[in-house]
Amino acid sequence: MAGVKLLGFWASPYANRVQIALNLKSISYEYIEQNLRSKSQLLLESNPVHKKVPVLIHGDNPVSESLVILEYIDEVWTQGPSILPSDPHDRAVARFWAAYITDKWYPLISEYRLAEGAEAKAAVKEKILEGVVLLEEAFVTCSQGKGYFGGENIGYIDLVLGSLLGWLRARGETQGITFLDKTKGPELSAWADRFSSHSAVTGVLPTSEKVIEFIKSFTRPN
Amino acid sequence: MAGVKLLGFWASPYANRVQIALNLKSISYEYIEQNLRSKSQLLLESNPVHKKVPVLIHGDNPVSESLVILEYIDEVWTQGPSILPSDPHDRAVARFWAAYITDKWYPLISEYRLAEGAEAKAAVKEKILEGVVLLEEAFVTCSQGKGYFGGENIGYIDLVLGSLLGWLRARGETQGITFLDKTKGPELSAWADRFSSHSAVTGVLPTSEKVIEFIKSFTRPN
Repeated sequence: MAGVKLLGFWASPYANRVQIALNLKSISYEYIEQNLRSKSQLLLESNPVHKKVPVLIHGDNPVSESLVILEYIDEVWTQGPSILPSDPHDRAVARFWAAYITDKWYPLISEYRLAEGAEAKAAVKEKILEGVVLLEEAFVTCSQGKGYFGGENIGYIDLVLGSLLGWLRARGETQGITFLDKTKGPELSAWADRFSSHSAVTGVLPTSEKVIEFIKSFTRPN
Repeated sequence: MAGVKLLGFWASPYANRVQIALNLKSISYEYIEQNLRSKSQLLLESNPVHKKVPVLIHGDNPVSESLVILEYIDEVWTQGPSILPSDPHDRAVARFWAAYITDKWYPLISEYRLAEGAEAKAAVKEKILEGVVLLEEAFVTCSQGKGYFGGENIGYIDLVLGSLLGWLRARGETQGITFLDKTKGPELSAWADRFSSHSAVTGVLPTSEKVIEFIKSFTRPN
């Protein structure tokens, strides 16, 4: 079996979701923490287009972009729990929500932070909460009464949304708001606690305290 | 076999790529043109989150988001040419470039149009041309001396980039620029002509003239 390396950064949710997926599949890998202020030759060579973590290097083959890596892992290592469901329509549903979270919902968190004035903030908050209602419905549909979007096990949507929890909590705490509102999304809220305490997740997902400390440490806005 | 319907709009590259994929796989389907200024009940019910075309309805199952639909088609209808390659690393490479085109390169075309002043436009043009060089390299690597990113047949990257050609040409013509620059991307330029005249594509991909007419017809900026 060719060796597996992961170029990551502890506070990157995109790297974190790959770490959790590798843990779930019990894949041995060498984790190589990157200094994002002084990028390594290995990172620049492995991901010359984006120069970003995560990069999974399997043998001689680098794979970039977290969602692409998750699909790759699921296709190469078929042992352990599947990341994506087996039914094509269920797979499409999982990919749909992953795209929704990535492209539509999560960007609202930055939008909220940057919105100026109470009225503008309230408008973004409204959109975030509408999203929570949608994600709550998606959870109920996908989990089928079990603990995760993926059913009994952590799956694709769990990885995509769950990896963002440290940042969601940190950004919420610094701004006095709970993004995953318990009233709008009671099941989702319970899921978030369940995900965070899963053995494949603890030790990977940073606490909100660590993320807040990290946010304070950089001066360059991002 | 459950019936297949596609909710589309003739000028939508996202709908077009699905039409071309269905043609490539010789899948019979009912095409239902949508009026995007007055959305049909069927569209609103089938894609309540985004309310956008394309939506593929397979039996009772709606599938939204063009890239998700392409994967779904490839998984359900295994006859005909494959959209994604079979090797996991090749699949990852195809998904990587599809994401690059969607999230990084194509948005530069709007950025160019909206850039104010010669200097700002030149800076965006530079980024677009850097992208053309990358895509040219990707074409050479993926096509392996054959006609398409997918090799002998139109594949995933072909569908993603090829479906944008009508708009790329139209936006280029109205602004006196050729985005797929022939000097920077000679192979890519030849590929674009080849793709446009493929039997699965002609009759689906709108001409730049039709797109320009369409752009002139709407007053709401988008």
